[in-house]
Amino acid sequence: MKNNLKKKAIVTGCAGFIGSHMVEHLLKLNYHVIGIDNLSTGKLKFLEKPLKDRNFKFHKIDILKTKNLEKYFKSINLVIHLSANADVRNGFDNPKKDLEQNTLVTFKILNVMRKLDIKKIVFSSTGSIYGEPDIFPTKENQHFPIQTSLYGCSKLACEGLIQAFANGYNIKAYIFRFVSIFGKRYTHGHLYDFYKKIKKNPKKLHILGNGLQKKSYLNVNDCVEAIFIALKKSKKKVNIFNLGLEDFITVNQSVNIVCNFLNVKPLRIYSGGKRGWIGDSPKIYLDTKKIRNLGWKPKKNIRQSIHETLTFFKKNEWIFKK
Amino acid sequence: MKNNLKKKAIVTGCAGFIGSHMVEHLLKLNYHVIGIDNLSTGKLKFLEKPLKDRNFKFHKIDILKTKNLEKYFKSINLVIHLSANADVRNGFDNPKKDLEQNTLVTFKILNVMRKLDIKKIVFSSTGSIYGEPDIFPTKENQHFPIQTSLYGCSKLACEGLIQAFANGYNIKAYIFRFVSIFGKRYTHGHLYDFYKKIKKNPKKLHILGNGLQKKSYLNVNDCVEAIFIALKKSKKKVNIFNLGLEDFITVNQSVNIVCNFLNVKPLRIYSGGKRGWIGDSPKIYLDTKKIRNLGWKPKKNIRQSIHETLTFFKKNEWIFKK
Repeated sequence: MKNNLKKKAIVTGCAGFIGSHMVEHLLKLNYHVIGIDNLSTGKLKFLEKPLKDRNFKFHKIDILKTKNLEKYFKSINLVIHLSANADVRNGFDNPKKDLEQNTLVTFKILNVMRKLDIKKIVFSSTGSIYGEPDIFPTKENQHFPIQTSLYGCSKLACEGLIQAFANGYNIKAYIFRFVSIFGKRYTHGHLYDFYKKIKKNPKKLHILGNGLQKKSYLNVNDCVEAIFIALKKSKKKVNIFNLGLEDFITVNQSVNIVCNFLNVKPLRIYSGGKRGWIGDSPKIYLDTKKIRNLGWKPKKNIRQSIHETLTFFKKNEWIFKK
Repeated sequence: MKNNLKKKAIVTGCAGFIGSHMVEHLLKLNYHVIGIDNLSTGKLKFLEKPLKDRNFKFHKIDILKTKNLEKYFKSINLVIHLSANADVRNGFDNPKKDLEQNTLVTFKILNVMRKLDIKKIVFSSTGSIYGEPDIFPTKENQHFPIQTSLYGCSKLACEGLIQAFANGYNIKAYIFRFVSIFGKRYTHGHLYDFYKKIKKNPKKLHILGNGLQKKSYLNVNDCVEAIFIALKKSKKKVNIFNLGLEDFITVNQSVNIVCNFLNVKPLRIYSGGKRGWIGDSPKIYLDTKKIRNLGWKPKKNIRQSIHETLTFFKKNEWIFKK
């Protein structure tokens, strides 16, 4: 009982898709949870359940602008840093955004950890960090990659900072390189875009690239579970894990599922090319043996996750407003 | 003749060790050269020759603080970005310095290049980017490394930014991962420290680590030459080269050379451990086949470079003042 009282975590980006699931999971595990979010993309509605829990406290703050960030980190022993600019596609329109929201925010958090002597961090990195890999499935220790997107390189910078801080200040780092995550509260990415566009015009659908890009997806609950398995079983200074399904589907197949679900047959108009946008990786397929070897086994496959997401959309069409 | 007029380069950190050699080399190649430096570690005296050349223009500016950076980059077609906080050892005492002086400055320069449509950049990265590699000699496309120093991770962030900008804005990037560089005007690093300490007290010499760390070195002239061979012969979007000698010596052997040169026999006091400081790599030994395959061949070995450096010290003891 006394031991439980000591478990105090902070979740950045707590009102986001993955963040809100993370908060619920931590509360289930009897953590005291501080949640921070600037609500730029996160939604308070996603925290409906946690906000009723007396072990959860929410603060609306912008990490980059907040001067006294330390005060939210008092007596925290686990930092779960999920807040990020996750808009991979439009990075080149505004190159400063990824640098600020990802790299500089992460530096600020690490600096607070250093000052307050907080010794454990979980970080959401990305499969985009591998650029356009040439070996599939791609392992965590694959070739030194070449970056192709500002999102990917900002996450690479975060990983580097976390690793260096881990080495210099004796912090334990848990870095997870995600494929795209699906499930309830998913609110950005191509599935979201397709659904929104079809609802607006069921006759025509613009698709970026040639539709043959191969993407992998993971269910948000499987993702959160993997993180806690790693925390429990992996004890290196720097622990890096790919998280994904060892399976992928093409963008066209995703479109088929959305169209069947909505019972429409739009004319498909492709922008062409094997990449949806500059920096898009034509194939994402991560090797997840490392986390599987710790006993993790995902419960949902890609199609199940897509269906869960579409069902969430149908029940929550308010997320498409604005 | 007309073609030559078009060659206009800017060198950041132009008054530094490598920067000043780079400026001289560019002038020899008939470039018009703009040099910028905040003179925090660079020295105007190193630019004695170029300052007499009408094709060279020097500006004392601090890139991070300068608002209208664009004006120095007008009609430039080659950016040689060498300015950096190169104090690898003390990174953990002031974690913000590497982030600002390396990562943020590089971002600022890339952003200017994007705005002014400048299409070529040379960047001085580092072998420290490999952290503590487990394969020697270490190749450019070796395993995805884990960062161990704030210096290394800041350079990793720079590389990532440069690669992403290259992909997004059609810039040609030349990234060079250096071992330590020796030669005339070398003004920081352990050889400098040893010489300075021995001059102050020839009886006792404090050495960081156990003295068995294996380091590789390259002569500054060989370094500059390698860069221009790569520029001429390698034409990918992102061109990455290790630069070093395929040879190394231990810290103890370096100390022997310095002691012989100065004809002293100090008592050696070791701080102990296989690393000189947190983040020090016990062995640096880079595979340089990639640049050698383009026809580059270094002219000086490690001992020759050390002697050249010590001779420079002897003739320029003013660099140890202040």
